[in-house]
Amino acid sequence: MPRAGELVFLWSPAKGDSFLVRVSPGATQGSHLGQMRHDDIVPLEYGDVILTNKGEPFFVLRPSIGEYARRIKRQTQVIFPKDSGFIIQHMNFGPGATVVECGSGSGGMTSVFAHFVGDGGKVISYERREEFSRLAESNAERWGVRHRVEFKVRDIAEGFDERDADAVFLDVQNPWDYIGAAHEALAWGNRLGMLVPTFNQIEKTLDALRENGFVDVQILELLMRYLKTDPRRIRPDDTMTAHTGFLIFAAKARAVPERAPAADVF
Amino acid sequence: MPRAGELVFLWSPAKGDSFLVRVSPGATQGSHLGQMRHDDIVPLEYGDVILTNKGEPFFVLRPSIGEYARRIKRQTQVIFPKDSGFIIQHMNFGPGATVVECGSGSGGMTSVFAHFVGDGGKVISYERREEFSRLAESNAERWGVRHRVEFKVRDIAEGFDERDADAVFLDVQNPWDYIGAAHEALAWGNRLGMLVPTFNQIEKTLDALRENGFVDVQILELLMRYLKTDPRRIRPDDTMTAHTGFLIFAAKARAVPERAPAADVF
Amino acid sequence: MPRAGELVFLWSPAKGDSFLVRVSPGATQGSHLGQMRHDDIVPLEYGDVILTNKGEPFFVLRPSIGEYARRIKRQTQVIFPKDSGFIIQHMNFGPGATVVECGSGSGGMTSVFAHFVGDGGKVISYERREEFSRLAESNAERWGVRHRVEFKVRDIAEGFDERDADAVFLDVQNPWDYIGAAHEALAWGNRLGMLVPTFNQIEKTLDALRENGFVDVQILELLMRYLKTDPRRIRPDDTMTAHTGFLIFAAKARAVPERAPAADVF
Amino acid sequence: MPRAGELVFLWSPAKGDSFLVRVSPGATQGSHLGQMRHDDIVPLEYGDVILTNKGEPFFVLRPSIGEYARRIKRQTQVIFPKDSGFIIQHMNFGPGATVVECGSGSGGMTSVFAHFVGDGGKVISYERREEFSRLAESNAERWGVRHRVEFKVRDIAEGFDERDADAVFLDVQNPWDYIGAAHEALAWGNRLGMLVPTFNQIEKTLDALRENGFVDVQILELLMRYLKTDPRRIRPDDTMTAHTGFLIFAAKARAVPERAPAADVF
Repeated sequence: MPRAGELVFLWSPAKGDSFLVRVSPGATQGSHLGQMRHDDIVPLEYGDVILTNKGEPFFVLRPSIGEYARRIKRQTQVIFPKDSGFIIQHMNFGPGATVVECGSGSGGMTSVFAHFVGDGGKVISYERREEFSRLAESNAERWGVRHRVEFKVRDIAEGFDERDADAVFLDVQNPWDYIGAAHEALAWGNRLGMLVPTFNQIEKTLDALRENGFVDVQILELLMRYLKTDPRRIRPDDTMTAHTGFLIFAAKARAVPERAPAADVF
Repeated sequence: MPRAGELVFLWSPAKGDSFLVRVSPGATQGSHLGQMRHDDIVPLEYGDVILTNKGEPFFVLRPSIGEYARRIKRQTQVIFPKDSGFIIQHMNFGPGATVVECGSGSGGMTSVFAHFVGDGGKVISYERREEFSRLAESNAERWGVRHRVEFKVRDIAEGFDERDADAVFLDVQNPWDYIGAAHEALAWGNRLGMLVPTFNQIEKTLDALRENGFVDVQILELLMRYLKTDPRRIRPDDTMTAHTGFLIFAAKARAVPERAPAADVF
Repeated sequence: MPRAGELVFLWSPAKGDSFLVRVSPGATQGSHLGQMRHDDIVPLEYGDVILTNKGEPFFVLRPSIGEYARRIKRQTQVIFPKDSGFIIQHMNFGPGATVVECGSGSGGMTSVFAHFVGDGGKVISYERREEFSRLAESNAERWGVRHRVEFKVRDIAEGFDERDADAVFLDVQNPWDYIGAAHEALAWGNRLGMLVPTFNQIEKTLDALRENGFVDVQILELLMRYLKTDPRRIRPDDTMTAHTGFLIFAAKARAVPERAPAADVF
Repeated sequence: MPRAGELVFLWSPAKGDSFLVRVSPGATQGSHLGQMRHDDIVPLEYGDVILTNKGEPFFVLRPSIGEYARRIKRQTQVIFPKDSGFIIQHMNFGPGATVVECGSGSGGMTSVFAHFVGDGGKVISYERREEFSRLAESNAERWGVRHRVEFKVRDIAEGFDERDADAVFLDVQNPWDYIGAAHEALAWGNRLGMLVPTFNQIEKTLDALRENGFVDVQILELLMRYLKTDPRRIRPDDTMTAHTGFLIFAAKARAVPERAPAADVF
């Protein structure tokens, strides 16, 4: 039974009209299919249907962090589940981890990190634009993971305060300028992750990784295709998101032995 | 400093010759680039280089769950990080969750689930072939998450023992035969996930989901492309894994209101 | 110098506002950037710029069959250049070939076939809906290849009139119903091509191909991604056409020798 | 009936063992499935089966230009049908066209161009390495289109001899160095096509196109996935060619009017 204060996912069979809603006594949720009263949600069980004042059904479902991060209130590009799912698996990351990220953006990735580090872990999230930091904070608050995040409003040109982080993630326009700072913040043998949208950015980032002695460099791109769900006409959707960004990962290594020529090591 | 008993990732700049190794005093790791003595790893720091008896360098890095799940000892197809990362985000899943899966296979997905539920969560993993269950168990043991998993050697034709699970995941040839059982095991409003390699399987699965009253059905496919890392010649790799499987998700709902015709709800 | 009666491509630097126009003295071409008088095009050279009455530039370029087939007046889905280009190369096709197709649709593929068979070749195009056949005819006329095409308004349930065709192409909802007819029309050792949008159609088509003794069956799908053209921010477009259809090809063979089990031959 | 001197496609149901063969009395075709005597092909019809001395069947099929260009004897990367099919449609190209290309490479694209220009058209193919030019010539000879091609062994640094070409295609490492030469050779309003494998090359090429006054610049990439042909287990192949190259097209324009800022026009 969804209690007041819980976040529920109101899913409509009519495409494109679903909502993540915090149940608030007295409140109303609008939709182009009609109005729903939050008070009508409270006596229901999960999986039940609530009808709008126009008689249109919405299912009361459990939200997932993936849906949440895609649907947050935002002022910046968010990181898609296809990308964030790979990111959290490729770094030395899990419940209990300490993760440093920059920038906070709208807080989608912040919330994903905070979700998966659990109560034993910690996220430190840097952002130089105060209004974005506040937005990220409110989005983490809404998902219930605010207490796991430390938000810092600051340019990382001065470097990160942290050392020995389990993972560092950069989602900024010019990651090459901060790879030295990321190196300082990371624990030895651990991984830096980055997302950049253009090829030109990849080139500069690779140069900076090499100069800073990173190894095990990997660049990859994920493409996601939805399929239609009519069992007699199974086929991919007509259009898809063709590009979000390229993921770049690298591990912090100590000085490369003379034996190994730089080109090979990289 | 990697202690005896820790799992380390020995990464060689020479492509295709990297190892996940549990540090064991007295043991030796072979490679086509020469032998490494585990005793030589112990005094090092993470990020350091160990040389083989032929003088070839390996970096001592932290392992990640993604690399681990891809590289486990296996007798079955494993689920790739691109897919498992999406799976754990799309369901009501996180630290503390209770997840039911079938089958255990080689234990790659089991280990990913067990990694991210944390010590407060639990994975129940069904498998009818005993040797696979044992393999999955040893792979979970090796990653250090065995204590979070209950392995059951049994055909799920008889149904699952669990009720009110946060998430159920099916990785079997004929998921349509077990969707009723999955429905029983799941908590209301929560999500069932499946992976199937062929279109024919999608068709049968969609029919079974509809019959069992699931809603919010999504089918998708993820494609991953690696890029080459030479900064002066950035380009996708020549070949890629073109297909692993299709992901299918659906939420457990109560009886659909008469108002809504079945075709629309689905 | 574009003469009256020629088809020209008016390309605007402002995205999404380009036109294929037959130069007609006295006519006017409208656009949201203003009006252009055809009489102003005639004195120009190809490559020149014509200004609208609002002073906006359009370049007078040569049209290509690819742009043409994408931009024809249509009442049906057209076949994209990515697909038609593969089709004309995979069959025994070229200048001088005799090609049979069904259905004509809006005539995009008809025009591509007619373009590449040249004056020595021939296209026979079947369509059961008269208004589509007329549209296809007018589109072939506009591209200047009407004289190479014979349009037939008829259901092919009765079979094709032709025998020994160099290539047969089916773009219909239920190709499996016409594979026997296509077999009759094709020359021995030559190829049948088909395009179907769904997986369910592939299954039925494969069964029909096997029953009719076709060999060298190939199924494939082409994905096309445009990239942005800013040299400092090279990246794929944000969205793309995710799916047009699956191409299926097969060659007409004589009776399979007993030696070879059917499963292998297929 | 395949006559002596004809090119036939010997297709084996056993994957990966098919041959394009010119029928030569007295000759023998080897395969890992046994030997075939060309004299045994002559009395057959197309679509018939020839058995090897080990009793294994090969079907005698008609070759297609697509299969041919993929399977030519080669010393360089060939252009795949997915790419060549788009190229011939996007330029002002067809039977009767005059096309200039550089370099000849192994002659795959040369043969495709020569196939589709027909006897009324002409291909001029430049190559600075004599052995490649000879190989391209012998591959065009084998496909029967040698008479439509003029091969020139020369570096195009000195420019092309041709003017007013319908289309120019560059398949070289450094297309940016030859875009001025290509501009001279092209007719006004017509299109230059290029294929480059890396992003770094795109950047330089875009700069050169802008400097030379080209417009209607398009960059795109084609991905091709084969599907398995078992009707009960339809699915994409496990691996695919992930990358061949990026296609770049642009049209030759006269001086841009002052009215239009360069950034917009491009």
